[in-house]
Amino acid sequence: MLNGEKKIKRPYRWAMVGGGRTGNVGYKHRLGALRDNTAFELVAGAFDIDYERCKDFGKNLGVSEDRLYPDYKTMFEEEAKRPDGIEVVSIATPNFTHFEITKAALEAGLHVICEKPLFFKVEQGEEIKALAEKMNKIVGVTYGFSGSQLLLQMRQMVKNGDLGDIHMVELQYTHGFACDEIGDKESEGQKWRVDPEKSGPSFVLGDLSTHTFYMSELVCPELKLKELLCDRQSFVKSRAPLEDNAYVMMRYENGAVGRMWASAVNAGCMDGHRIRIVGSKASVEFSDNQPNELLYQVQGEPIRKMIRSMPYLYEECNADERLGALHAEGLPESWANIYLKFAVAMDAKDRGDEETLKNLVYPDINAGIEGIRWVTKCVESADKGGVWVDFE
Amino acid sequence: MLNGEKKIKRPYRWAMVGGGRTGNVGYKHRLGALRDNTAFELVAGAFDIDYERCKDFGKNLGVSEDRLYPDYKTMFEEEAKRPDGIEVVSIATPNFTHFEITKAALEAGLHVICEKPLFFKVEQGEEIKALAEKMNKIVGVTYGFSGSQLLLQMRQMVKNGDLGDIHMVELQYTHGFACDEIGDKESEGQKWRVDPEKSGPSFVLGDLSTHTFYMSELVCPELKLKELLCDRQSFVKSRAPLEDNAYVMMRYENGAVGRMWASAVNAGCMDGHRIRIVGSKASVEFSDNQPNELLYQVQGEPIRKMIRSMPYLYEECNADERLGALHAEGLPESWANIYLKFAVAMDAKDRGDEETLKNLVYPDINAGIEGIRWVTKCVESADKGGVWVDFE
Amino acid sequence: MLNGEKKIKRPYRWAMVGGGRTGNVGYKHRLGALRDNTAFELVAGAFDIDYERCKDFGKNLGVSEDRLYPDYKTMFEEEAKRPDGIEVVSIATPNFTHFEITKAALEAGLHVICEKPLFFKVEQGEEIKALAEKMNKIVGVTYGFSGSQLLLQMRQMVKNGDLGDIHMVELQYTHGFACDEIGDKESEGQKWRVDPEKSGPSFVLGDLSTHTFYMSELVCPELKLKELLCDRQSFVKSRAPLEDNAYVMMRYENGAVGRMWASAVNAGCMDGHRIRIVGSKASVEFSDNQPNELLYQVQGEPIRKMIRSMPYLYEECNADERLGALHAEGLPESWANIYLKFAVAMDAKDRGDEETLKNLVYPDINAGIEGIRWVTKCVESADKGGVWVDFE
Amino acid sequence: MLNGEKKIKRPYRWAMVGGGRTGNVGYKHRLGALRDNTAFELVAGAFDIDYERCKDFGKNLGVSEDRLYPDYKTMFEEEAKRPDGIEVVSIATPNFTHFEITKAALEAGLHVICEKPLFFKVEQGEEIKALAEKMNKIVGVTYGFSGSQLLLQMRQMVKNGDLGDIHMVELQYTHGFACDEIGDKESEGQKWRVDPEKSGPSFVLGDLSTHTFYMSELVCPELKLKELLCDRQSFVKSRAPLEDNAYVMMRYENGAVGRMWASAVNAGCMDGHRIRIVGSKASVEFSDNQPNELLYQVQGEPIRKMIRSMPYLYEECNADERLGALHAEGLPESWANIYLKFAVAMDAKDRGDEETLKNLVYPDINAGIEGIRWVTKCVESADKGGVWVDFE
Repeated sequence: MLNGEKKIKRPYRWAMVGGGRTGNVGYKHRLGALRDNTAFELVAGAFDIDYERCKDFGKNLGVSEDRLYPDYKTMFEEEAKRPDGIEVVSIATPNFTHFEITKAALEAGLHVICEKPLFFKVEQGEEIKALAEKMNKIVGVTYGFSGSQLLLQMRQMVKNGDLGDIHMVELQYTHGFACDEIGDKESEGQKWRVDPEKSGPSFVLGDLSTHTFYMSELVCPELKLKELLCDRQSFVKSRAPLEDNAYVMMRYENGAVGRMWASAVNAGCMDGHRIRIVGSKASVEFSDNQPNELLYQVQGEPIRKMIRSMPYLYEECNADERLGALHAEGLPESWANIYLKFAVAMDAKDRGDEETLKNLVYPDINAGIEGIRWVTKCVESADKGGVWVDFE
Repeated sequence: MLNGEKKIKRPYRWAMVGGGRTGNVGYKHRLGALRDNTAFELVAGAFDIDYERCKDFGKNLGVSEDRLYPDYKTMFEEEAKRPDGIEVVSIATPNFTHFEITKAALEAGLHVICEKPLFFKVEQGEEIKALAEKMNKIVGVTYGFSGSQLLLQMRQMVKNGDLGDIHMVELQYTHGFACDEIGDKESEGQKWRVDPEKSGPSFVLGDLSTHTFYMSELVCPELKLKELLCDRQSFVKSRAPLEDNAYVMMRYENGAVGRMWASAVNAGCMDGHRIRIVGSKASVEFSDNQPNELLYQVQGEPIRKMIRSMPYLYEECNADERLGALHAEGLPESWANIYLKFAVAMDAKDRGDEETLKNLVYPDINAGIEGIRWVTKCVESADKGGVWVDFE
Repeated sequence: MLNGEKKIKRPYRWAMVGGGRTGNVGYKHRLGALRDNTAFELVAGAFDIDYERCKDFGKNLGVSEDRLYPDYKTMFEEEAKRPDGIEVVSIATPNFTHFEITKAALEAGLHVICEKPLFFKVEQGEEIKALAEKMNKIVGVTYGFSGSQLLLQMRQMVKNGDLGDIHMVELQYTHGFACDEIGDKESEGQKWRVDPEKSGPSFVLGDLSTHTFYMSELVCPELKLKELLCDRQSFVKSRAPLEDNAYVMMRYENGAVGRMWASAVNAGCMDGHRIRIVGSKASVEFSDNQPNELLYQVQGEPIRKMIRSMPYLYEECNADERLGALHAEGLPESWANIYLKFAVAMDAKDRGDEETLKNLVYPDINAGIEGIRWVTKCVESADKGGVWVDFE
Repeated sequence: MLNGEKKIKRPYRWAMVGGGRTGNVGYKHRLGALRDNTAFELVAGAFDIDYERCKDFGKNLGVSEDRLYPDYKTMFEEEAKRPDGIEVVSIATPNFTHFEITKAALEAGLHVICEKPLFFKVEQGEEIKALAEKMNKIVGVTYGFSGSQLLLQMRQMVKNGDLGDIHMVELQYTHGFACDEIGDKESEGQKWRVDPEKSGPSFVLGDLSTHTFYMSELVCPELKLKELLCDRQSFVKSRAPLEDNAYVMMRYENGAVGRMWASAVNAGCMDGHRIRIVGSKASVEFSDNQPNELLYQVQGEPIRKMIRSMPYLYEECNADERLGALHAEGLPESWANIYLKFAVAMDAKDRGDEETLKNLVYPDINAGIEGIRWVTKCVESADKGGVWVDFE
């Protein structure tokens, strides 16, 4: 159980690139990182491409004016000169900038926490992985929904055989907020996401389904994806070639199969992010709009709803419990759990504690690379007309 | 609103082939046909391959002993001799017998109501269609879930443009009752379903998904399926080559896409039969385990739950309402609605009332043929390795 | 499991008083009685105070014209002259006529099935009970929601101690269909219900809460109500002194307590009929708008949803199962279950089979009398200003 | 919309009395106060009656060792000597100590934030109110569930007449975690709650229902409670005279009525905290285990679910929005919202900004006093046998 007491010696000195006032992703990073003030402290930032806005915003967050920078290069350079300079940076900028900023940060000797999808190409991921290893740094990826402890409950249930053999993985991340063209034109947060130059080869596959794909890897680490088939559409035509809807079918090496539905045009849908694992004996399902419960269905028995925080959950799950029974947790706790693990990972890395690193479950560089591979393979399949392609 | 008053001049004299005591499908036919006693009266039957059991069962249903027969051939022959002989027969036997019994019934001058999947081959369907036309008879197919008036509400919503352009059709009929081999060996109702000789080229595609595919045709009559791709599995190995799980992806002529998931191994799932239609503005969803409500989601508006019987529903829906507000209807009302339409169709056919026939929405021979085509094409796609095949 | 096979030697010859085309309660009686055609056959009726409408309606139901009567007196008289005259009558008329019709029916040698609330005064109930005993006839009361087999599951759970000691009984039957005056003036079905001359001393207490109170007696037969306190309101003023909202608090002899909320002005509520039993270890809850499941909550364990028809339910429950898994039952099945028990009770009474009668659980004359007592005591408490009154 | 930017000039220097490692309420205070680090900074504490544990815990939270104190008196004394001494204190100790600590804090010139129920007697509340006015300080009360912006949506809907005239207030806060004696004996957090010396004249009325009663005042500020009637029980006998279950009926001055159910023995209940407001046209309902949605039911229209963050909500609601659509908020956001308002109130008080204070909606000393009155009157009614007592 977490109660705010420190897990590492002292908080890391932390900065952000991007995540300013005009979007809403930055606040999620801060809600995650600054929970309890025992893992990170926000000391610097290049929050905005508009430097005046960056300064105004940063001051309002309580950052010293002299540590608010016009761009990431200046920040890395200037901070490096300070004895109390930043140790880790979070990157919450449009996708096409992730690679260069991550590379620069690592080269500047910083740990990196980066938004998904990590980069455009698997090769970039591999290059960064090698660089991080060389620099002895952590690269974390903010699959922000994956921090719910109930996913660890699912992982443990799968591991313990509570479901029997795993047969199916049913994944969905759909909403309807991009049902028309308006957002493409008017929303700062959406405009770049439908621009292949800035977003990469996909819209919803990268923006949405990478979250859910990682959740499936988290819950079923033994399951190896063998091949997949993707069909994608651009229902809002101006958005083409980027898809606003995609169906994926999967085949795993052990004979299990799966599906993913990613969509930004599932009109009116407000609860469309879920993961269901079907085994030979039972199924378990999580939906992040009901993040305090798991649906657990054993064939032939009453349907069960398992409630967050209850003693009948595995200790691997309850270790990340904060509030206790009857008290709803939400997405900020998920982000806080992930950020806390990033801090623990950084601390272990810095101390050379490989044992801790080996056992720590969090979205690391490998998870980031698999996400890139996922998008790449889906796009490849779709572009070939919806055919089966090997995953590796 | 229906209240039991007659819709046709007098009830039809009705018999069943199959539907005896050892299965549970026969009761659904009787619940449908005998509702209100103003459309059908049960006067004869060849309910069971065991003649003694047939007689004992039939007498308990109130059928005269002299009209309980050892087999359908005898029944058709003997009843033809009576001035008050049967006029219509329902067929609730294993799939492989549907064709020969239907043919014999039509040739005996009877209307026919038959279980799904109708036959094994599209050609058989075409042959029967021609025969029925020649004999001036109706062939109805018991897609028993399709009688809910809320599906007519959906149909009207689609027609009226309440959803905008139709983009997606999401179909699912999954349960977990065949998670292990036991039923294959011990259940009378299941044994033949996993035997290709008796069940045909599929298990869950025919047994489950034909229902849901028809529901999609009922709700979206304008949508024309262009091509599909199917991947199917036999998780319980002894069942191979018949599948206990199948995924289908669909592409429609207007650019819409869709999915179907049919499964008998979705462990623990008790609410897995649903249809969701996604339009450019809104979505609507029906699940037959909550048969008294529709989920209606207009993008940007509060989520709506529309409740059966309420005046805000279309009159095409409320025309089939029976109980009124606060009073749950269930599957028997769905069957009753279908059977009532079979009777109205038969009556119109007998009277030569083409106008009524043209406007009547019910699962007719064409719906039966499309169901066969659906299964055939899915199996073809799956057997080729999961590739796109043309639907026509 | 029920499948339509007969439970008694032959169907009873049955008639209705009231239940014509202008209301919708009559259809529920017919849906209940005529299910399977093995317990009742409809042979006569005085369906309507308008004789022409009665004849038109009755013919449409398939009743012979010569057995459609202008009033109940004529019907009882004429049918008594026939060798195939009626044996049982259902009364679905406004409350103020129940007593005289029931009395006349018993005196005419008929079994009686009557709508709730039975009569206005407990003394009337006692008089009828004595008369029924003298005439060796059954009086059944149509608490139409009480036929769900899941209530028998609850009864068995209470009996078996699955919940521990019973501490609380939470009852609710609320809707919002009488939120304004319109129905009082325009609806045939509602007009008399808000007229004390015709409805008796209460509106929602009699019309709604008697159902739910009986359900609590059915589920917890050992619980004896000691005292109650009622506060009632007429939010729509023209309706006073009859209440459209009532709160009741209960104290039972064993120390348990309870509440009832009855309302016709719970605006927008479409799912307000439920019963929850709280024990020292666990609770169980049924809502008749989700009539296919029970909520079962054991303190400290995952929340369970028990699904109708599943083998884990008690056999006392599954004995009344009709459709099997995945197939929704609704209110008509509830009515059918009650009517079938009426028939079994009548048959046992006629045969002098006291053993069967003793073990049969159905809403009999005693349940009707307790319903009258409930309303009487609630009104007494409310009229005294909302004070505790003894129940006996 | 909130994004972490400061609302007041600088964060207040904040300390806690109680809220240490052995309970779990303290963490909720810190989650509320330290959100964004722009309203409060934690600089001192007397977290625990065990001084060693206090020091160990406080250091782990990042508080300087020299500002960790053995008791509140020492803390107030020592901090008063510092130029950077504390400005506000939160009290999270057992109920019987609230009064003396609050009084001492105000006398030490501090703003106070205190747990509910505030004190034992209304007179104590009035005394503290006068003292706070004299000292020009704020007293806030942590009705921690009341910070959800959806309650402000409800308030605005009531104010705007969306529901019509208010007829009913249905309140419930029930769980089953005290179903047996074990917690009374073994749980640090529960032991004192069932001890009248430490908890005051009630258990669940004070511990649970004060939250919900405040929510009703927040949502319906115009509604004035005229009289109430309470029946309370001690199902776990060792707990008597303190109740573990209580029913309350309410009558308001405008003719509206209401109910409250508070319970710690509602076995298995995990979702029992809710508030429903019924008007003449529509109802609205909030449950804090689904804190991201409101049920909105207009009589005669489809049932609506309004989702947190959507533009169709009132701006008074969305002003407190943090995460945006599809991103679940939980109880920590509710606490953060309240604490932020405490800070804004303190700042306004310190600046003499009466305008801001007048318009700020938060649980202040008056809300605290009403909570005491609520408990007092409920206990009075129950102790007199469950009779109506005037509220004022």
